[in-house]
Amino acid sequence: MNREELVKEINSKQSFLVIGLDSDIDKIPKHLLETEDPIFEFNKAIIDATKNYCVAYKINTAFYESQGVVGWQSMQKTIDYIPQNIFTIADAKRGDIGNTSKHYAKAFFETLPFNAITVAPYMGSDSVIPFLEYPNKWTILLGLTSNEGARDFQLLDLGNGQYVYENVIKTAATWGNTNNMMFVTGATQAMELTNIRKILPKHFLLIPGVGTQGGNLQDVYKFGKTEDVGLLVNVSRDIIFAGDNLDFAEKAAEQAKNYQTQMQELLQNS
Amino acid sequence: MNREELVKEINSKQSFLVIGLDSDIDKIPKHLLETEDPIFEFNKAIIDATKNYCVAYKINTAFYESQGVVGWQSMQKTIDYIPQNIFTIADAKRGDIGNTSKHYAKAFFETLPFNAITVAPYMGSDSVIPFLEYPNKWTILLGLTSNEGARDFQLLDLGNGQYVYENVIKTAATWGNTNNMMFVTGATQAMELTNIRKILPKHFLLIPGVGTQGGNLQDVYKFGKTEDVGLLVNVSRDIIFAGDNLDFAEKAAEQAKNYQTQMQELLQNS
Repeated sequence: MNREELVKEINSKQSFLVIGLDSDIDKIPKHLLETEDPIFEFNKAIIDATKNYCVAYKINTAFYESQGVVGWQSMQKTIDYIPQNIFTIADAKRGDIGNTSKHYAKAFFETLPFNAITVAPYMGSDSVIPFLEYPNKWTILLGLTSNEGARDFQLLDLGNGQYVYENVIKTAATWGNTNNMMFVTGATQAMELTNIRKILPKHFLLIPGVGTQGGNLQDVYKFGKTEDVGLLVNVSRDIIFAGDNLDFAEKAAEQAKNYQTQMQELLQNS
Repeated sequence: MNREELVKEINSKQSFLVIGLDSDIDKIPKHLLETEDPIFEFNKAIIDATKNYCVAYKINTAFYESQGVVGWQSMQKTIDYIPQNIFTIADAKRGDIGNTSKHYAKAFFETLPFNAITVAPYMGSDSVIPFLEYPNKWTILLGLTSNEGARDFQLLDLGNGQYVYENVIKTAATWGNTNNMMFVTGATQAMELTNIRKILPKHFLLIPGVGTQGGNLQDVYKFGKTEDVGLLVNVSRDIIFAGDNLDFAEKAAEQAKNYQTQMQELLQNS
């Protein structure tokens, strides 16, 4: 899916919501555990119930890998089930030397046909470029993350008043362009968005941390929006685990609709 | 496997060789492609032929993930096949917010019973600590990697003469101890080892980049060794793809023995 198509979906649905399928086997409703593939059954129901309120699904690979081979089967079935007009993100945070990154790119762009993958920057250009070589696919690089640990290295001062993460996004932006790269910037750091937009005026930003992690949607929109929105805001647990009973999908839909309604208001009043 | 046991294996085999099972389906001998699980058949033959010359196998997850579900099956079968006295490393370079890293730790310490996993540092303490909470398991953090891209961020100067990677290893070393943490430091940067040993005098270092990537074993040993060796040197392609015909395992064994012999000389002359 290219940028034009993604923006079209955002405008048509009046939503820039990403739903994170962090489908933890220990947190999904108990009645699903009797089915043959509980994680897939859960995802299927969540997708059916929420697909009109979001423009993307983000699959967090950890929750599938912890189940081993069976988890990779659930992931394969889920990516095959997501409707074609919805953007798909493998939240995999991969990155290795070039020869290895090529295989990660193959894993998540070919074997599993995701539109996008999250990538960690630590190993530098040759660890990221193999992902960028796929036409019509997106590389979403970690910039400033939403967790406490972001302070440890991302917010180190380089001695010239510039943080490490600023250098990372400035440098990495030169490896790709606004049509094949996005950056992860946590909502818990919304005040940094003004600063980030000086460095990345046009790139799409993937914003996690709204909801359970405490980030504020209004601030994210105010400080982060571009002419064509330029934001994908992810909510995971706050939507998918809104209920834990037979009506879990209904509850998830209500919560997704809440977010979509808030987004629509922001889109219409700007 | 604890440190004492690992050191005992090193002394007994007179080897600190790690063999990297970067078992690329496009590079394994063609006659194996007719078998039911070519990657596992390849690994099995390599393990049988080389297990007396190395103290560890490192499975690079990318080469398995690019094959999807089938690849995870090959990985499961491989880890189950490796003899108990050999240290096993999931070269996965994972790392995410705490709740997610917990699931990665489960994936590679429980579902797949590896002894160790490589972890990326960018997201900081809470992305690493869930791995450290497993007793008798090892977290191998990226310090200074062997690729060109290491220059992009790892070798940024923090304005006080300290590189980013130095801050990373110094800070991260406080999260664990010498019995549950190791660090990746590329052999292509052997001259930096003296400096790294000032920061990490006792930690085991996992050294990739010897062989195909051009790193030098003698330099690594000279600048990197500790009282109890403290080094695991990884060689992947240079051993496992030494031959590409019916005798591929024999060729791999010869090459592994070459490395082991060089290591024995170093161990005995120091």
